[in-house]
Amino acid sequence: MNYFSSNFKLGILGGGQLGKMILYHTRKYDIHTCVLDPSKDAPARLACDEFSVGDLLDYETVVNFGKQVDILTIEIENVNVEALETLEKEGIRVYPSAKTLRTIQNKATQKLFYRDHDIPTADFSRFAHTSEIEDAVENGGLEYPFVWKSARFGYDGQGVKVVRRYTDLVDLPNVECIAEDLIPFKNELAVIVARNSKGHLKTYPVVEMEFHPEANQVEYVICPARIPDNIAKKAELVALKTAAAFEHVGLLAVEMFQTENDDIIVNEVAPRPHNSGHYSIEASYTDQFEQHLRCILGLPLGNTESKVAGVMVNLVGAEDYTGNVLYKNIEDIMAMDGVTPHIYGKKQTRPFRKMGHVTIVNKDINKAREVAEKVKKTIEVISE
Amino acid sequence: MNYFSSNFKLGILGGGQLGKMILYHTRKYDIHTCVLDPSKDAPARLACDEFSVGDLLDYETVVNFGKQVDILTIEIENVNVEALETLEKEGIRVYPSAKTLRTIQNKATQKLFYRDHDIPTADFSRFAHTSEIEDAVENGGLEYPFVWKSARFGYDGQGVKVVRRYTDLVDLPNVECIAEDLIPFKNELAVIVARNSKGHLKTYPVVEMEFHPEANQVEYVICPARIPDNIAKKAELVALKTAAAFEHVGLLAVEMFQTENDDIIVNEVAPRPHNSGHYSIEASYTDQFEQHLRCILGLPLGNTESKVAGVMVNLVGAEDYTGNVLYKNIEDIMAMDGVTPHIYGKKQTRPFRKMGHVTIVNKDINKAREVAEKVKKTIEVISE
Repeated sequence: MNYFSSNFKLGILGGGQLGKMILYHTRKYDIHTCVLDPSKDAPARLACDEFSVGDLLDYETVVNFGKQVDILTIEIENVNVEALETLEKEGIRVYPSAKTLRTIQNKATQKLFYRDHDIPTADFSRFAHTSEIEDAVENGGLEYPFVWKSARFGYDGQGVKVVRRYTDLVDLPNVECIAEDLIPFKNELAVIVARNSKGHLKTYPVVEMEFHPEANQVEYVICPARIPDNIAKKAELVALKTAAAFEHVGLLAVEMFQTENDDIIVNEVAPRPHNSGHYSIEASYTDQFEQHLRCILGLPLGNTESKVAGVMVNLVGAEDYTGNVLYKNIEDIMAMDGVTPHIYGKKQTRPFRKMGHVTIVNKDINKAREVAEKVKKTIEVISE
Repeated sequence: MNYFSSNFKLGILGGGQLGKMILYHTRKYDIHTCVLDPSKDAPARLACDEFSVGDLLDYETVVNFGKQVDILTIEIENVNVEALETLEKEGIRVYPSAKTLRTIQNKATQKLFYRDHDIPTADFSRFAHTSEIEDAVENGGLEYPFVWKSARFGYDGQGVKVVRRYTDLVDLPNVECIAEDLIPFKNELAVIVARNSKGHLKTYPVVEMEFHPEANQVEYVICPARIPDNIAKKAELVALKTAAAFEHVGLLAVEMFQTENDDIIVNEVAPRPHNSGHYSIEASYTDQFEQHLRCILGLPLGNTESKVAGVMVNLVGAEDYTGNVLYKNIEDIMAMDGVTPHIYGKKQTRPFRKMGHVTIVNKDINKAREVAEKVKKTIEVISE
């Protein structure tokens, strides 16, 4: 199939920021795109060829949307999987596959998948309801502390909790969940694996999530990770094994922990372009969005190496502001060498809302890290 | 003015490929854009917020379009300048200015401007009609050979001719024109100058246009130019002087010749992103389209240095093909490291039509040049 000059149509489920960034490259290659999103104001409403408003979780909507395209991809996992199964049966190529999405959508199934495929991950127990956890602890089947995770999406910011004692459990929703061993780690790492529909594989360099020492929140994504080569190699191998197990087509972002014993264990995966790869727009030979396209279209994979070192800082709404967004001091950070803000186009800010990100590149990783700190101290996402 | 979160509107006259590439960055910064183009199928119809179809040379159309925006820029010089003058009087900020465009639109006026501002350029004579040239030669006021150039736009591919004898003159249109000294040169060079509305100036590295030895056609744009440092310095200074003379705001691409005596003379300028800067998308810290935006919005200028060396190859329609375009072997070039095709989205090819470009980047300029040659030998723009 000739994507560049025929009647080929690519469908994207979700028109958020990731979709918008994929569209930079469909425009570059002049690939006809159709986007479905529940919001008429979705960022990807512009730059696509056809934009439809509809519920990504509604079977009929997704089937009808998918039928008009040749290849269908997603920018968000939370879509109707039955619809994707129907579309696959009708010959639409769906990447990531319905099977992969079904596995990933449920954290218990995802963890079982790792166990079944001999992929290192923290031990866990599975519960149909949070209320069953208490019994398990009383029977000696589970010990504090552990990490509670709801199995399903949709508990924004409330899907994960470290449980150290009984009282930590009481406010949790009574849903399907897992209780995972709390494993002390030195570093949180991520590797993006690119695999095209012909089975060719490449990995992006290992990136490091640097946490704020007090807030325990990711502050910087740093590429390359400042870790020894043998650890990086280990992380790459685990990521490759994971992508191979899924027989994945597209990007697979594999989030991992480097434990205190220097083991690498998988935390979770995202079968699409990912926050941990945003640095690639400015730093890599082939950015993750272009690479995702190359994968799902069966094109040759691009070079995943970096031209320069990159650090990414998320732009989130400041704690005390709600209303029409204002990017305070944005001009000051734009005056710093190698700094590129990306504004997602949400008109309203609220505390901790993800409003954009900033990439800092430099030939010297330490210099990039320094500038990133200056960026973080300078720009503020407040309201007018 | 807060471009990132207010009701600010940026207008772009022309919705071609350059406009389309500017829109990557207005999307990145979430800047509201309005585009005017005569064709409803213009590449920039997508990705802008508001698209209007209309004649760029029609006074009323341009005035009405311009009145709704705060800042107006162009991606093509051939627009109605009277309309821009009216808009400037009404307080719309127009970059480049109506005055600059009026000077540039006419090659005779442009050359006089260089002479008046002591900017080195080839000597020339000005004629109201081509038919007057013969008399000038007979009177001894002009000698063969010289370069005939029509003063006005609109003679696509026919606006320039080397005239060596009388018979070379006979088929030329009888229009306002100049006859310019034919100066042998070693290299054709270009420098893009960025100047923002606050008067801050930066230059991109000198690029070199490498010509095909027989066809006398630009084959490769190479950054950085493979010339001695003192020549590069000289070219940069001439370009800066030219931008300063225009009191230019935005990008000014200055095309120059390095003569056999190593003098630098200005050939012509383009007051906008330019073909000679396309390499910057993949190679520079700040690409030319983002830089143009930074200039006209009065934002700090970005770093104009390169992360890696870049070579650009134009993709033009092959000689013997007309019809629905097919990019033959595009997958083969995409398999080469550091190669990025840009497809402009024209559905029909014809001989020599500009259909796209390909950028080749590498840490080593010689390696990039080698790959560029492979790219040129591999891809073909033909019809289905």
